[in-house]
Amino acid sequence: MKILGIDPGLRTTGFGVIYKQGSKLTYIASGTIKTVEGTLPERLKTILSGVTEIIQTYQPDCAAIEKVFVNVNPQSTLLLGQARGAAICALVQAELLVAEYTALQVKQGVVGHGKAKKEQVQDMVQRLLSLSGAPSSDAADALGVAICHAHSGDTLKTLGAIAPELAKKGLRVRAGRLIG
Amino acid sequence: MKILGIDPGLRTTGFGVIYKQGSKLTYIASGTIKTVEGTLPERLKTILSGVTEIIQTYQPDCAAIEKVFVNVNPQSTLLLGQARGAAICALVQAELLVAEYTALQVKQGVVGHGKAKKEQVQDMVQRLLSLSGAPSSDAADALGVAICHAHSGDTLKTLGAIAPELAKKGLRVRAGRLIG
Repeated sequence: MKILGIDPGLRTTGFGVIYKQGSKLTYIASGTIKTVEGTLPERLKTILSGVTEIIQTYQPDCAAIEKVFVNVNPQSTLLLGQARGAAICALVQAELLVAEYTALQVKQGVVGHGKAKKEQVQDMVQRLLSLSGAPSSDAADALGVAICHAHSGDTLKTLGAIAPELAKKGLRVRAGRLIG
Repeated sequence: MKILGIDPGLRTTGFGVIYKQGSKLTYIASGTIKTVEGTLPERLKTILSGVTEIIQTYQPDCAAIEKVFVNVNPQSTLLLGQARGAAICALVQAELLVAEYTALQVKQGVVGHGKAKKEQVQDMVQRLLSLSGAPSSDAADALGVAICHAHSGDTLKTLGAIAPELAKKGLRVRAGRLIG
């Protein structure tokens, strides 16, 4: 299963594509879409067409995007919201299911605790995907979202769906794991 | 020239299409796109495909969208931003030039002053477009944005562009009008 992770932003949108086979994760690609100049509609168009191009190139099976912080500056929050909306539009237009994770969930999923610093996320992403160098911060965050989805997403959901069946057989499931 | 006006929102996105011939404005269509249920990505998809369908149906030559308020609730601001981003994506994807107007500009352009109430906007939109009944508030706002663009937009810009030429002939332009 190929997973596309997105870290949205108006100036820089990070993306990362990984391949999940059983519990093994393989790096495919990562990078950023930059939109420094132009009117807001032009910048949103760059994000929309950029993410669309990434989808066409790497053909992911599903997508995950980071839930963004509410900024202290409401105007920035509004701009960030519009950028995130453009990225999501590219994903849903390609008929991809979109999962959402907070920065806290990504840190917990990648580093193991929610207070991890940017460098720790970059370092763990590099280790988990056996990269020769640390990816840029935006790309690392996007790969982190994809890793987070690979670890938690469908595996847990699938096991959750069959939990009642397992219960009938005297088995119990908690947090996605068989117990008892 | 056909103008598409959009009043963006996550629950309700208003749209209005008018035809401008010289100084005469004619009503073509208006309505709302509703997205009450579903996940955020699903709702953004509804806005994106809804606005795209309106463009395909009415084939506007240009578009104008209302600049949104920054809400007191940052989470609402973020949601509204994403909805507006989705609407803009549909417009730029169709290669439409997108103009932006604040609610104040729309009220000034339609009613004549910035403190106009919702009902006054609805009433003036009904009069200006010779409608038999008042449009709904969201549709009226969208038609108002289109009217605002018809009045100020390209006419002023075009006249602004030829102003230096007119100046050579001893004529002067101020606020889009010939003076002296």
